[in-house]
Amino acid sequence: METRKYTLLILLFMMCFAALKVQAQEKAPTATWIWYPGDYEIWLSNKMQARRTERGAFLPPLWRYYSPYAMVTFRKDFSLEKEEELQIFTEGQYKLQLDGKQLHGNPKTVKIPAGNHSLVIKVYNQEQVPSVYIQGSQLVTDSSWQVTYEDKEWIDETGKASDQSGTNWEVVGSWDFDSPQDLPSQFRLATSPHYATDRRAIGQGELVDFGRETFGYIQFHGLRGKGKINLYYGESEEEALDSVYCETLDYLRFDGSQEEAYMVESSKAFRYVQLQSEGAISYDSVSMHYEYLPLDYRGEWNSSDDLLNEIWEVSAYTMHLNTREFFLDGIKRDRWIWSGDAYQSYLMNYYLFFDNASVRRTLLALRGKDPISSHMNTIMDYSFYWFVGIYDYYLYSGDKEFIRNFYPRMVSMMEFCLDRRNENGMMEGLPGDWIFIDWADGLSKQGEVSFEQMLFARSLEAMAVSAEIAGDEQGRQRYGALAEEMKEKLFEVFWSADRQAMMHQRVDGQVLDQVTRYANMFGIFFDYFSEEQKQAVKQSVLLNDNVQKITTPYMRFYELEALCALGEQEFVLEEIRDYWGGMLDLGATSFWEKYDPEESGEEHLAMYGRPYGKSLCHAWGASPIYLFGKYYLGVKPLSEGYGQYEVRPNLGGLEWMEGKVPSPEGEIAVYCSRKEIRLSADQGQGLLIFHSKSKPKTNTGSIKDLGEGVYELSISPGVEYTVHYKAIL
Amino acid sequence: METRKYTLLILLFMMCFAALKVQAQEKAPTATWIWYPGDYEIWLSNKMQARRTERGAFLPPLWRYYSPYAMVTFRKDFSLEKEEELQIFTEGQYKLQLDGKQLHGNPKTVKIPAGNHSLVIKVYNQEQVPSVYIQGSQLVTDSSWQVTYEDKEWIDETGKASDQSGTNWEVVGSWDFDSPQDLPSQFRLATSPHYATDRRAIGQGELVDFGRETFGYIQFHGLRGKGKINLYYGESEEEALDSVYCETLDYLRFDGSQEEAYMVESSKAFRYVQLQSEGAISYDSVSMHYEYLPLDYRGEWNSSDDLLNEIWEVSAYTMHLNTREFFLDGIKRDRWIWSGDAYQSYLMNYYLFFDNASVRRTLLALRGKDPISSHMNTIMDYSFYWFVGIYDYYLYSGDKEFIRNFYPRMVSMMEFCLDRRNENGMMEGLPGDWIFIDWADGLSKQGEVSFEQMLFARSLEAMAVSAEIAGDEQGRQRYGALAEEMKEKLFEVFWSADRQAMMHQRVDGQVLDQVTRYANMFGIFFDYFSEEQKQAVKQSVLLNDNVQKITTPYMRFYELEALCALGEQEFVLEEIRDYWGGMLDLGATSFWEKYDPEESGEEHLAMYGRPYGKSLCHAWGASPIYLFGKYYLGVKPLSEGYGQYEVRPNLGGLEWMEGKVPSPEGEIAVYCSRKEIRLSADQGQGLLIFHSKSKPKTNTGSIKDLGEGVYELSISPGVEYTVHYKAIL
Repeated sequence: METRKYTLLILLFMMCFAALKVQAQEKAPTATWIWYPGDYEIWLSNKMQARRTERGAFLPPLWRYYSPYAMVTFRKDFSLEKEEELQIFTEGQYKLQLDGKQLHGNPKTVKIPAGNHSLVIKVYNQEQVPSVYIQGSQLVTDSSWQVTYEDKEWIDETGKASDQSGTNWEVVGSWDFDSPQDLPSQFRLATSPHYATDRRAIGQGELVDFGRETFGYIQFHGLRGKGKINLYYGESEEEALDSVYCETLDYLRFDGSQEEAYMVESSKAFRYVQLQSEGAISYDSVSMHYEYLPLDYRGEWNSSDDLLNEIWEVSAYTMHLNTREFFLDGIKRDRWIWSGDAYQSYLMNYYLFFDNASVRRTLLALRGKDPISSHMNTIMDYSFYWFVGIYDYYLYSGDKEFIRNFYPRMVSMMEFCLDRRNENGMMEGLPGDWIFIDWADGLSKQGEVSFEQMLFARSLEAMAVSAEIAGDEQGRQRYGALAEEMKEKLFEVFWSADRQAMMHQRVDGQVLDQVTRYANMFGIFFDYFSEEQKQAVKQSVLLNDNVQKITTPYMRFYELEALCALGEQEFVLEEIRDYWGGMLDLGATSFWEKYDPEESGEEHLAMYGRPYGKSLCHAWGASPIYLFGKYYLGVKPLSEGYGQYEVRPNLGGLEWMEGKVPSPEGEIAVYCSRKEIRLSADQGQGLLIFHSKSKPKTNTGSIKDLGEGVYELSISPGVEYTVHYKAIL
Repeated sequence: METRKYTLLILLFMMCFAALKVQAQEKAPTATWIWYPGDYEIWLSNKMQARRTERGAFLPPLWRYYSPYAMVTFRKDFSLEKEEELQIFTEGQYKLQLDGKQLHGNPKTVKIPAGNHSLVIKVYNQEQVPSVYIQGSQLVTDSSWQVTYEDKEWIDETGKASDQSGTNWEVVGSWDFDSPQDLPSQFRLATSPHYATDRRAIGQGELVDFGRETFGYIQFHGLRGKGKINLYYGESEEEALDSVYCETLDYLRFDGSQEEAYMVESSKAFRYVQLQSEGAISYDSVSMHYEYLPLDYRGEWNSSDDLLNEIWEVSAYTMHLNTREFFLDGIKRDRWIWSGDAYQSYLMNYYLFFDNASVRRTLLALRGKDPISSHMNTIMDYSFYWFVGIYDYYLYSGDKEFIRNFYPRMVSMMEFCLDRRNENGMMEGLPGDWIFIDWADGLSKQGEVSFEQMLFARSLEAMAVSAEIAGDEQGRQRYGALAEEMKEKLFEVFWSADRQAMMHQRVDGQVLDQVTRYANMFGIFFDYFSEEQKQAVKQSVLLNDNVQKITTPYMRFYELEALCALGEQEFVLEEIRDYWGGMLDLGATSFWEKYDPEESGEEHLAMYGRPYGKSLCHAWGASPIYLFGKYYLGVKPLSEGYGQYEVRPNLGGLEWMEGKVPSPEGEIAVYCSRKEIRLSADQGQGLLIFHSKSKPKTNTGSIKDLGEGVYELSISPGVEYTVHYKAIL
C-alpha cells in the first residue's frame, strides 16, 4: 500500500515534469553565437585598442597583445523528443561530427532523429574568432555548450576514434549576437546622426562646433570635386584651431569618385573640428554620426541642488562616452583598456547602467591568456584592481557562473603575483614592473609600498571568496591564510602609532618617514582599520593639509569615498561642488582627466608635456555617479546580487534628493527629504537605516530602534515604504 | 720601443679592420622580411594543415593550434658612417620610433643622419604575421635584429619613456623573403605545368592519367558553358574510378562566367583523375600545375644494380613530394605535420636536399608555443622525436644559432615531459596521452614501455648537449644526470639476461614476458648496448622470426638502420630489393604508407577501414635515400656540421656504387668498387675507413693500418683521393 502511494506520487511527479518539458519545448529557445571564452574579448580589444592614433600615426598599446585560438571544438550532448532540423552558421571553416561520425561536405542543415545525441563542431578561423550559431526548434547554441582548444582526439589503425579523457572542456563564451546575420566579427557600435550647433569661417576653411563633447564619424554632405581636406579635431576650440599641435586629425584625399555623403573612416572624440581644403573640392556642410554602446541609464539622481544635478548628468554622459566595446579611460587620446581606470568604471556602472556584460568583457580583455609575462598593463597595482574588480562584480551581480568559469585564470594571475614576492613576502617592483599608484609629483615607488601591499591583501581576499565559489576548498584556505598574513604584516610594518597613519614605504628594511594618502584612504573603505584608527587617520591624514594633496580625479575618487565612509557627506558635497562645478564653470561638457583650480586658460588643456595632451572626457571624472548612489542615496549590496542590501540615505546638507539604484532584477528607488523617506525595491531583503531626532513612523512594516537616534526598517520587495522622521542636520 | 712596436701593430690592425668594414659597406647588404621567431611557421602550418579535406569535407588536425603574436616590436641599435635613407615595408600597421622618439604619420622612407642610433618598430597584424622589411644602403632587416612580444615600455606623467629592463628580446625569425614585394603572407609553393599521359572515356566523362604520382592543381582548357563538373582523384586508377569511396574530390559549379583556362582552387595528390560533367558544359582537355618546393637533389646515388637505382629515384621523388611548406607525412589524405614522421624526413633530407630551412620550419611549427598542454601531436613518442631531431639537426648542420635561440622552448617542452613522470621517474601514458610506437596488431602500450623510456633518455641527452650550446651550465648538468639515471634504469628494469633482449613493458611493477623489436632496434643505433649486447640482440630479436614482425615502412626504417649498424648491409639490400622492389613491381611511382607482400589486388589500397585509406606517397617510404647515403656510401658527421666526419663505404654485395652526400658547405663524393675507392670532400676533416684483403694504395696522403684488415685514410677538403684495395666480400 505504501509502495502504491509512492508509485502514484512518482507518476504524478513525472507527469508534471513532462508537462513542463513540453512547455519548455514549445517556447523556441534563443540561439546565440558562441566562442571560446574570452577569445572574442581579446580579439575585439586588440582591434579596438589599435584604433588609437596620434596626429594620424598608429599608436597601439604599450602592453602585450594576446591571440584567440584559431581552432576550437564545440560540443553538446543532448536529447531530442522528436526529429530536429538544425541550421548551422559559423565564422570559419568547420567539421561536424554527430554521435562520433563526421558528416561529409559542409552541411548548412542537419536532420537529427529523436533520442540521445552528441554534436561536435570543430571551427577554424585564423583571422577572426572561430564561432558558431546553431538554430533548431529544440537545440540551439547557448551557454550550455562546451568548448576546448585541444580535444585530444585520435584514431587508431582501424579508424576508431579515441576517448578524450585528457580533454579540458570549458563553458563557451557569448555576448548578444542572437541572429545568424549578426556576425561577431562584424560588430559595430550603434550610431545616430548629430548636427553641428555652430560653424564659422577660419581662413579658407571653417570651424564646426557640435555643442558638446562627442564621439563619432564626421560626414560630409554635397562633397564634390577633387582635392584634399584636412580635419583637425579638438575637445576644445583651442585644440581644433591648432593644426600643428592638435592630438587627432585626418588628412583626406579625394579623386572625385567619392560619394557626396562621404563619411570619414575612423571615429574620433571631439567637440570642434576645423576643416581646411585644398584644390577643386567643395562641400555643403558636415554632420557627424555619434557612435555609442546602446545602454539605458538605469540609475537616476535628482536633488534640491541644481548644480549637483548637472554634475550627475555630465558625469553620466562622460561615463557613457567611455563605456564602449570596453570601458575606456578616455576617448580622445587614449582608447585603451587600463585595469585601474576600468575598476572605477565597474563601480560607476553599478550605479548607472548595471551592464554586467561590459564588466565581464573588460575583465576578460584585460586578463588575456596564459602564460602571464607581466602585470596587467605592466602595472602592479593594475593586476590587483583586476582581482578586487571581480570581487565587487560578484557582490553587485551575484554572477557565480562567471567566477566558476574564470577561476583558473584568476589562479594563474595570482600565482604570477605570488611568484614575484620579495624575501619578506611583499610585492616590490621587479625589472619591467611599472608601479603606478597615481600621477603625483615626486611620489616614490621604490621598495615595499604600503598601498601595493594593501591592494595585494584585498586581492588575496578576492581569491579566497572566488575559490569558495569555484569549489576549491584548498585554494580557499590557502588564499585566506595568505590574506590574513598579508594584513598582519601590513600593520606590523607600516602602521605608525606616532603618526597615527600607514607609512608610505619601506626601503632596504627601513620604513621611511613619509605619509601619503593612498593606503590610508583604502584602509578605510576596505574596512582594514579599527573604528579608532579610522577616526585617527581622518585627522592625521585625510584632513591634514601637510600630507601631499591628491590632484587626479582618479585618486580623488577614493579620497572622497573614504571621507563618505567616515560620514563626511556634507564636506564631500562641498568638494564636489567646487571641483566638478569648477570644470562646469570652465565650460566642461564632460569631465576631465585632471583639473587643477590653480591653473588658468590653456594650462587646463595641457598634460604629458603636450599643449592638448589632457583628455577632457575621462571615465574617472564621472565618480559623482558612484558617490551619489552609494553614499547619499546610500544604497549598497550586503550579499551577492543584492540578495541583502542596505539603504543609508545621507542628505549631506541637501533639502531633498531622489533617485534610483539598479539591482540585478530591477531597481531600488529612494526619495529622501529632511522629513520623509520613501523607498521601494524590486528584489532582495533590504535594511533602511537612518538617523532621526524623533521616533519615526512608517506606512508599513515596523521600525526598530537601534538606540542613539538610529532606526532600522526591513524592506521587502514590491512594497512602497513611506517613513516620516526628523533628520539630524 | 716595445710600446711603439705594439702601437704600430695595433694601428695596422685597425687599418685592416677599417678596410674590411669599408668593403663590407660597399657591398649593399641583403634585406629580408623578419618576424617573431616561430610565428610565421605556426601561422603557415595552421593554414597548410587546414587544407586537408576528406571527400570535400574540411578535416583539420587532431591537435591544438597555436597563434602568432598579433603585435610585436622589432629593434636594432646601429651605427651609420654616413647619412642613410631607409625604405620601410611592413605587413601590418606600424609605429616607428627613432632614438626614442615616435615618427609621425606612417613614413615609407626615413632619413637618418650618420652616428649611433636605435630604431624600434612596433607592428600589429591580427590576420597575418606582423613582419617588416627595411632596405637601406647600410642598414637592412636581417637576423641581427631583435624582437619582443612585450616591450614593457611606459611613460610617466611628463611623457618620458621608461626603460625596458624587464623586456625579453629575442633574435628575429626569417626565411627567404628577400624582396619588398615577396610578402610572407602571400607565400605560395612553385608550380609548373604538366600534361596528361593518357585519357580515356568513362561513361559520359573520362579518366585522365598523369603518368605518375603527382601533386597540384587541375587546369581546364577551353572550358565553356554552364553546369557541374565532378572531379574524383585517385592515387590509383581504382580510387579515381570509385566516385563513392575515393578520398579526395572536387564538386565544381560553373555559371558560364569562368575563364576558359579555369584552374581548380585547391591542390590535390593524385595520379589519376576522373571527370564527370552535367549540364551544358564542355572542355577540350585538362592539364595540371605541379606544385613543389624548389629544392635541388644535392645527394646522388648510382650503382651496378638498376633496381636499387630506381628505388633511390622513386624514394627521392617521394621525399620531394612530401617536402613542402613543411615535411608532410603523406600528400593525399594527410597533409599534416607529424613529429615522428618528420623526424625521418629530417634524416632523409640530410642525404638528399640538405635543406636546413625545412628542418627548422618543421621543428618550429611542431613546437608551437607555451604553455604546453599536451605532447606533440598528442603523442608521447613524438615529443621525444622532436628532441632527438634537434640533436641530429645540430650534428648535421652545426647550426648553434638555432639551438641558442630556441633552447628556452626546448626547456619548457622538456619540463612538460619531466612533470609527467610516474613515481618511478618513468614516462607512462596519462589521460589524453597517445602512445603510438607503431601501427601493429595488438601492440600493448600500457604501463612503462621500454621504447618510450629509451627515447626519453635520448631526449635528455639532446637537452644536455643543447644546454651546453646555450651556455646553461646548470641545465647541462641536470639534464646530463637525468639522462644517465634514465639509461641505468632502462637496463636495470628492462634488460633480460635470459632473453638477451630489452623487454617490452612493465605494468604495475611487473615486467611482462614480451619482447618487441622497438627498444632493441633503437638501442643499437643509439649505441646504448655494449658490443656483446648488440650481437646478442641481433640474434635474439632482429633475426628472430618469433618476435612480432615490423610491417610499416615507418619502423622498417629503424629496423634496417639497426641491421646496417650491425654490418648487415648485404642482408638489408636484399630486404630493400624485396620490399621496395615489391612496390615497384606493383606499379608504384612513389612509395607507400604500408606494404604487405601477402596482400593482393585492391587490398594494397585499403587502410583505416577505408578502401583507399592508404597513402601511396608517404615520406617514411623513402628511407633508402638515408640508408644508401649513411650505410652504403657510408658518410656521416662525427662532429657538428661535418667539422669531422667518416666515410665507411660498404658495397653490400654490389659491384660498384657512387654518389654524393651533401654537407653544409658542399658535398662528399664517393665512388666505390671492389678494387677502387675515390673520394673528395668540400669541407671538414674526414676519415675514410675500409676493409681490404691486401695492403691498399692511395694517390695522396698516407693510409693507416688499424689491424685485422681495417685501414684508415685522413681526408682533407679539396683533394681527390683514389685508393686501390681489395674488398672483402
